[in-house]
Amino acid sequence: MKELQLKELSAVKDEIEELIHAYVQCIDDNRLEEWPEFFTEDCLYQIISRENYERNMPASIIYCDSKGMLKDRVTAHRQANIFEKHVYRHLVSNIRIINQEEDAYTVHTNYAIFQTRLDGYSEVYNVGRYIDTVVFEGGQAKFKEKKAVYDSLVIPTLLVTPI
Amino acid sequence: MKELQLKELSAVKDEIEELIHAYVQCIDDNRLEEWPEFFTEDCLYQIISRENYERNMPASIIYCDSKGMLKDRVTAHRQANIFEKHVYRHLVSNIRIINQEEDAYTVHTNYAIFQTRLDGYSEVYNVGRYIDTVVFEGGQAKFKEKKAVYDSLVIPTLLVTPI
Amino acid sequence: MKELQLKELSAVKDEIEELIHAYVQCIDDNRLEEWPEFFTEDCLYQIISRENYERNMPASIIYCDSKGMLKDRVTAHRQANIFEKHVYRHLVSNIRIINQEEDAYTVHTNYAIFQTRLDGYSEVYNVGRYIDTVVFEGGQAKFKEKKAVYDSLVIPTLLVTPI
Repeated sequence: MKELQLKELSAVKDEIEELIHAYVQCIDDNRLEEWPEFFTEDCLYQIISRENYERNMPASIIYCDSKGMLKDRVTAHRQANIFEKHVYRHLVSNIRIINQEEDAYTVHTNYAIFQTRLDGYSEVYNVGRYIDTVVFEGGQAKFKEKKAVYDSLVIPTLLVTPI
Repeated sequence: MKELQLKELSAVKDEIEELIHAYVQCIDDNRLEEWPEFFTEDCLYQIISRENYERNMPASIIYCDSKGMLKDRVTAHRQANIFEKHVYRHLVSNIRIINQEEDAYTVHTNYAIFQTRLDGYSEVYNVGRYIDTVVFEGGQAKFKEKKAVYDSLVIPTLLVTPI
Repeated sequence: MKELQLKELSAVKDEIEELIHAYVQCIDDNRLEEWPEFFTEDCLYQIISRENYERNMPASIIYCDSKGMLKDRVTAHRQANIFEKHVYRHLVSNIRIINQEEDAYTVHTNYAIFQTRLDGYSEVYNVGRYIDTVVFEGGQAKFKEKKAVYDSLVIPTLLVTPI
């Protein structure tokens, strides 16, 4: 019985890792139209500074609480940015299941995003931590909540690419 | 039967991860003479920009299509660079088996390479994605194809260290 | 029998990965008071340059050979640094069990640490490799030795945060 549970947890962990890997790949490939599909209909996506997160202050750069809002965000982003000016590359590390409540998993992940500008130089764009709640919908892992808690404060606040 | 296949896929994934980890370690340790051994005799190694890769343009910084060419490359690199001027450190992330055709696996991996110069400063040197075809030769995982598709355009084109 | 051993090695690998992930998270969360608990009583913690490590030179930035010394280090660090001036973010990669002798495992891991200053900019702070000896104490994975072998030479030598 315990072995069965361990197997299951190991399978869950594999699927959560795949969710996170596929998510960042979607952004790196600039396939933003697919990006909302990583979330449940009723969801929360937030980009928030480490300081505000730790002080429990709600102010955040992006706050979307439905898949519809995520789609609107992509539309706005595409309209405002006619030419793609940067490319992004995510590295993730330390994917850890911190908690389980019924069928919802709290998952923490460190990330570093590198931006390459048109001039060809790559630099550290944003580092921080994902604090996610993952559920399974029809056997498919999805984000019910995704908070990108960033260390770096210098990011464009107006029309930032999803993190 | 399905469980058996899952087990096998999981074992294959472990061996592919180990191949990629050992590969980048070999470069970081500057053991370049061992570097060609990660490839099959008949192989393809290419360092190509993201732009050219996406447009299906062949122009690349390095193009080697046999293990012999890889060995020549190391020899040239050693002769041209008498003194080691930099050290490298690779981080990899998002190792994903994207496709399997018979016994060949297509594997995508994000990478970031940090360069430390003689003055001691470390900086982002190159970020991008490995697009690999991995096969098993006598039970040993090897690269049949390895394409390092880089975001960063500012890299020395003449005698670059393998990526 | 062989399958049992494989299962066990896989479980050991999972626990060692969790140890390394929890360790860096502890530093990133600035919970330094918990940091000595990742080590055995009788331990070695060393921050040493790649050059000195490779030449077998003992000179290192930090050298602690007991848990007590680690605790003293944290106390000194807290007293000297009234205000937290930076935050750190670790990414690790390539966690590999290189050797096993009886119940001690030699583990190599690449790391990159990003520092975010008060002005909000994140940059590469330190990259290198952990060379660890991990043992199990009462079923709990601990560092018997941890050497942070850094490529980057430009780090504050006086009261550095643990790496």
